[in-house]
Amino acid sequence: MLNWKNFDELSSYQALKDAKRVDVKTVMSGDSGAERVKKYHVPMAEGLDYNYAAKAVDDDILGKLADLAKEAQLAEKFEELYDGAVINTGEKRLVLHHLTRGQLGKDVIADGVNKRDFYVEQQKRIAEFANKVHAGEILNEKGEKFTTVVQIGIGGSDLGPRAMYLALENWAKVNKTLKMTAKFISNVDPDDAAAVLESTDVAHAIFVLVSKSGTTLETLTNQTFVMNALRRDGLDPSKHMIAVTSETSPLAHSDEYLAAFFMDDYIGGRYSSTSAVGGAILSLAFGPEVFAQFLEGAAAEDKLATEKDPLKNPSMLDALIGVYERNFLGYESTAVLPYSQALNRFPAHLQQLDMESNGKSVNRFGDPVSYVTGPVIFGEPGTNGQHSFYQLLHQGTNIIPLQFVGFRHNQIGMDDTIQGSTSQQKLCANVAAQIVAFACGKEDENLNKNFKGGRPSSIIIGDQVNPKTLGALLAHFENKVMFQGFVWNLNSFDQEGVQLGKVLAKRVLAHDTEGALKVYSDLLNI
Amino acid sequence: MLNWKNFDELSSYQALKDAKRVDVKTVMSGDSGAERVKKYHVPMAEGLDYNYAAKAVDDDILGKLADLAKEAQLAEKFEELYDGAVINTGEKRLVLHHLTRGQLGKDVIADGVNKRDFYVEQQKRIAEFANKVHAGEILNEKGEKFTTVVQIGIGGSDLGPRAMYLALENWAKVNKTLKMTAKFISNVDPDDAAAVLESTDVAHAIFVLVSKSGTTLETLTNQTFVMNALRRDGLDPSKHMIAVTSETSPLAHSDEYLAAFFMDDYIGGRYSSTSAVGGAILSLAFGPEVFAQFLEGAAAEDKLATEKDPLKNPSMLDALIGVYERNFLGYESTAVLPYSQALNRFPAHLQQLDMESNGKSVNRFGDPVSYVTGPVIFGEPGTNGQHSFYQLLHQGTNIIPLQFVGFRHNQIGMDDTIQGSTSQQKLCANVAAQIVAFACGKEDENLNKNFKGGRPSSIIIGDQVNPKTLGALLAHFENKVMFQGFVWNLNSFDQEGVQLGKVLAKRVLAHDTEGALKVYSDLLNI
Repeated sequence: MLNWKNFDELSSYQALKDAKRVDVKTVMSGDSGAERVKKYHVPMAEGLDYNYAAKAVDDDILGKLADLAKEAQLAEKFEELYDGAVINTGEKRLVLHHLTRGQLGKDVIADGVNKRDFYVEQQKRIAEFANKVHAGEILNEKGEKFTTVVQIGIGGSDLGPRAMYLALENWAKVNKTLKMTAKFISNVDPDDAAAVLESTDVAHAIFVLVSKSGTTLETLTNQTFVMNALRRDGLDPSKHMIAVTSETSPLAHSDEYLAAFFMDDYIGGRYSSTSAVGGAILSLAFGPEVFAQFLEGAAAEDKLATEKDPLKNPSMLDALIGVYERNFLGYESTAVLPYSQALNRFPAHLQQLDMESNGKSVNRFGDPVSYVTGPVIFGEPGTNGQHSFYQLLHQGTNIIPLQFVGFRHNQIGMDDTIQGSTSQQKLCANVAAQIVAFACGKEDENLNKNFKGGRPSSIIIGDQVNPKTLGALLAHFENKVMFQGFVWNLNSFDQEGVQLGKVLAKRVLAHDTEGALKVYSDLLNI
Repeated sequence: MLNWKNFDELSSYQALKDAKRVDVKTVMSGDSGAERVKKYHVPMAEGLDYNYAAKAVDDDILGKLADLAKEAQLAEKFEELYDGAVINTGEKRLVLHHLTRGQLGKDVIADGVNKRDFYVEQQKRIAEFANKVHAGEILNEKGEKFTTVVQIGIGGSDLGPRAMYLALENWAKVNKTLKMTAKFISNVDPDDAAAVLESTDVAHAIFVLVSKSGTTLETLTNQTFVMNALRRDGLDPSKHMIAVTSETSPLAHSDEYLAAFFMDDYIGGRYSSTSAVGGAILSLAFGPEVFAQFLEGAAAEDKLATEKDPLKNPSMLDALIGVYERNFLGYESTAVLPYSQALNRFPAHLQQLDMESNGKSVNRFGDPVSYVTGPVIFGEPGTNGQHSFYQLLHQGTNIIPLQFVGFRHNQIGMDDTIQGSTSQQKLCANVAAQIVAFACGKEDENLNKNFKGGRPSSIIIGDQVNPKTLGALLAHFENKVMFQGFVWNLNSFDQEGVQLGKVLAKRVLAHDTEGALKVYSDLLNI
């Protein structure tokens, strides 16, 4: 039987609170720093490596974090999760996104079916559909091939799949597996859909409507918006649309779609990139084989996450260090800084993943917690960020922990030696330099040019952004967020905080308002 | 003579510290809330309006903020700035970006010239060049018209111009003033330039190299990268490139460019959208008349910023409320949430503008300050953010102040009534609903569905994102950041925090490293 205790009820909470702090600047200087970079790392899947040398930890803190992992039963809770317990206590649901990419534990039977079989079945159906589209067996009304796929979805149905598509688009071009160009419509601002439609050859486009419930306001509105536009162009929407939804949704068995593919209530939106939500668009864009490789990378990383010892479990260790920074060092935000243009929108996806999962004030039983939980997550790719917000990261009055990601090789392979080094070398040199600059700083008599250092970071290093490493990277962060939720005793899998705004927006549209809401509505001419 | 005192030396600092706090939930409920929304607003330029009803202020706090404005001599300091004092104390430079869009005070003579005349002259030269390109008087080697313009720049030479271009692209299409498509290359990751080149008809493209100093590593590298690619395509780079730089830079008088346009050391990168840095690409993309309207909007907003009474000065008031939240309410981050897809990358620009200007720990004299300064800035457009990080904003353990922006009309004008309301109405209804949801919350016995409220926000409301309102919006935030820098007694116009990383990166590339830096370099195969 598992103990679901609040974080501050654990003895390791007090031990970490009392532990001697580590001065990052001191330990990262000189030989000690070199030793740490060699020692403080954990291999991830697909050749990735999580290096935490520049974090404010030492063997003592790591020992106490390992005690915390044990006391909080992180590995056991993960096991409960993948074996099919009701981990989403608020909505009374299982949490099964890991099953979309592999079987970690027992068979999970729910709704009368083996859920692993169900997810695999959907992947197969998507693969067959995508192969037929690519082979020209499924064609538009004029018997022509489809060239573009447009996802209509918002939140988890947008950010994850969009970030993954952008991460692999150039890789796929180089590897000649870009089957269709993908685009995305998300915002209810009509300019979003209108601009995408304007720049798309809609006669040769398949639209993927993604909504688990089949009731998401923005998505249904954009669907109708698109259908109306198709009809105005003399096209039959039902020949251009597929749905990704739950089997019980109103969209599941409708004549309005060429086909429908299914997820279920056990896949949270922000965890749905490896389900049919990511599967349909990524399989259409890149081919089912590429999507399978992506799942393979995620499954390999999930396997590592089952390890009990956090020093051998990169996502668990990353989670524990993040908790330590948040609750004992008092850091409120974390910056995600991938040194890869392909990971341009990866920080925006992690922002949702993390902030929507753990931005909560009550525990999984609905009782208030008396400690801080999920941090603010933000970030842009390097080196761009260096010329933007890094000023504050280096010299601001608050310390922001940093999560770097770097790759030895680019995707396109076009590179020139300029002033003695390639662009790729310059990119890598910059991320290495930044870690040390943040950690060690540099003294200067002119305090305006003084760098205090002591700003902690970690880095995930890999060879290249490709389907497998991307899957591993995604799973790493999903599992990190899950483990942090376990430590904080949260339900990381619901999002009640998004409900009130929806309710009030409906009242505004029904002109059923009073007080401030009425005046704001008037000001906005609603 | 002005007093440049630290914030905590002012008597209004103590008064604000001791002031009675305002409970946002209480004051925003019922009739009181309605009254506040009607009362607590300041007109901005171009029909915009800054409404701060949902901020944690009342007449008492506002009075004390007005005292602070007076004691800190905010209006007088701004006057010193636009009259040409050396406000950038670190680099001993004037700060003249306001002069690029209008003359607020005295003639400013520097480097032996009237600087307003200088900036206007550059605008004219750019306008003539752009008009010739559009008219087909400047052509490529084959005598064909240019169709695309590609900016090569990073940081301030990228984020601002890119955000402005994206904000106006659809407006320009609708208004038939989109003369050329614009693209941007910024990251030293070679995949950035390679992907842009791959998707661009380079034979019909003009590249705008932007670097004030002419020495920015990323930009010069990308320039050579692009030149090499052009040569491989049999093109003469000097027939495809223009430069935007300072007159003293190595790029200023080179045969390698079709033309060179100038800014100077008095325009900080993050304040350069209204200078030649934004001017070249925006004039080429939209025509000089559109760029002139953008400047007009900014100039009108600047004029309002000269007002001494913060209750009539929207950017000063916004700045003061932000300082109050940061230093007395203890809020560390601010979210920027434009309900407009056109302002997609506006938050990324504000992130640089704010964090690079005020993310500092020493005052303008180089002495440490003992209070917190610039906040973390992040944001995504609404309604997208609602389905992402709003969970934490509503129910997280930290309070994040919110800066909403909303418009009554979209740009493209394509809209449908779906379930009784248009997409535009749904968009506006959502922003109104969010403000009230954040401020007032909603009690629920199930604490998981309980919303505490008390989360402060402001909103800027306008009719439409167009060149004039965009200029006004940009100037508002530039001036807000400037006023906050004055309160905190910072030099908001240098960025010494970006230097150390550059120095260390050079050492990595020269293989002149030891300790941790050497090991990281080895791990990254440099």
